[in-house]
Amino acid sequence: MRLIENWFSERYSENLQLSFRVKDQLLSIKTDYQRIDLFETYDFGKLLSIDGTVQLTEKDEYIYHEMITMVPFYFNKRPKSALIIGGGDGGAAKRLVDLNFERIVNVEIDRNVVDVSKKYFPEIAKSFDNNRVELIIGDGIKYMKNSNEKFDRIIIDSTDPVGPAEGLFSKDFYKNVSDHLSDGGIVVTQSGSPYYQPEALSMANKGMKSIFNNVLTYIAFIPTYPSGLWSFTMGSNKDMSIRDEKKSFGKYFNEDVLNGCFKLPEFVKKLID
Amino acid sequence: MRLIENWFSERYSENLQLSFRVKDQLLSIKTDYQRIDLFETYDFGKLLSIDGTVQLTEKDEYIYHEMITMVPFYFNKRPKSALIIGGGDGGAAKRLVDLNFERIVNVEIDRNVVDVSKKYFPEIAKSFDNNRVELIIGDGIKYMKNSNEKFDRIIIDSTDPVGPAEGLFSKDFYKNVSDHLSDGGIVVTQSGSPYYQPEALSMANKGMKSIFNNVLTYIAFIPTYPSGLWSFTMGSNKDMSIRDEKKSFGKYFNEDVLNGCFKLPEFVKKLID
Repeated sequence: MRLIENWFSERYSENLQLSFRVKDQLLSIKTDYQRIDLFETYDFGKLLSIDGTVQLTEKDEYIYHEMITMVPFYFNKRPKSALIIGGGDGGAAKRLVDLNFERIVNVEIDRNVVDVSKKYFPEIAKSFDNNRVELIIGDGIKYMKNSNEKFDRIIIDSTDPVGPAEGLFSKDFYKNVSDHLSDGGIVVTQSGSPYYQPEALSMANKGMKSIFNNVLTYIAFIPTYPSGLWSFTMGSNKDMSIRDEKKSFGKYFNEDVLNGCFKLPEFVKKLID
Repeated sequence: MRLIENWFSERYSENLQLSFRVKDQLLSIKTDYQRIDLFETYDFGKLLSIDGTVQLTEKDEYIYHEMITMVPFYFNKRPKSALIIGGGDGGAAKRLVDLNFERIVNVEIDRNVVDVSKKYFPEIAKSFDNNRVELIIGDGIKYMKNSNEKFDRIIIDSTDPVGPAEGLFSKDFYKNVSDHLSDGGIVVTQSGSPYYQPEALSMANKGMKSIFNNVLTYIAFIPTYPSGLWSFTMGSNKDMSIRDEKKSFGKYFNEDVLNGCFKLPEFVKKLID
């Protein structure tokens, strides 16, 4: 976190940064897992940063959360249950509630992320009050080792593969994920900026391909994430195909996006060959 | 142009900026039309800025130039002639040469852009030495009023619709463009960031729809342009459809991109309804 003369800057590298002018810094805490900062910005409303990295802003969080939930939702048989690993802000759970999932288990390692979201993003965090959502504060990796429950969707809504989330991109972890997927179930993970973090996408892709029969990568445009281009990686042991059903739309997601987001630029394809 | 402690920053608004650490500023001139700055950056190589706005960098110029030329190339009958308005760096002309266009007329209003590109981006500007390329230093609007030549493609490779390029987004201009298109010909213009400059996309779209029977918008990811998402708008008086032909690919463009780039996020669709 760098705050100079009322600007919060996220460093994309030693040589590149995006800076948001802020009205106020509302919070800066160091938890057992990470540093959490909360800013009131001019252009993007409230902004949550973890370890100096933008996690969500009021204005554009819809893109990431629609894309990590709605894209896998429309594949295969209509899903009813989901496990979210991470996602302590509640944004993914909120969309799953809207998509009429019947059971949503959300395992977040850092209670402070939930508390901060409840205080500063109440419209998003209210998903935790829904009786279809079970919030567990704990380590997602351990949770899966100790549970036998299977889910139709597993959503890895984590920070980047450095720090506490590193284990969430490994082959061992994906093996555990596979054991918790129902028949035809699908896992999806955020897999970083193909432009600035090609290794995150490559790790997720290689890790998933070593476990799952079918792996697909898709992309979305997120203005407050590094480079503006973000990737997601989906895996399943069954074929994955979009089912015939009228699609709802969000502020970003629609049926065209569902069909177009798997059509990757050449430099992205090369990362997952 | 802001250069503070060896950082060049492009302001996306009063409250948001992207900053590139620079090794050196190689040039800063004020021409009759605009301010031109040239930086040697760490992450993106040489960077050309006009009026404080990134125009191209060595590292990612391929995305913009592939997308403004290769997408319209694959529609309708194979095009042989093209008029470029703007494009003084030579990047669009270079791709048209590669696509085997037989005649390319490039009308750039500011000789200094050409000179700067020849000096600092010689691999790009060398397109002007090709005997299929005719470079004219002059006003594109006036050029079209005084010429009767028709072209299979007209490429509006301009700066944003403030300053010298403002007239290139008007209905009157598109009427002129229409008169210079051959049967089945297509015009394409860059139409700004849908996220930060929605009015540029709306202007291009409305202006084209008032003149052309068919208008299509497509998008690409460009990391050094505001928000990372960029739009292009194509118009024609004939139907536009992708022809059956093996597609070549660039570093960004490929056949998937050709099919996927017209699939627009919901918030972009709303701008062009």
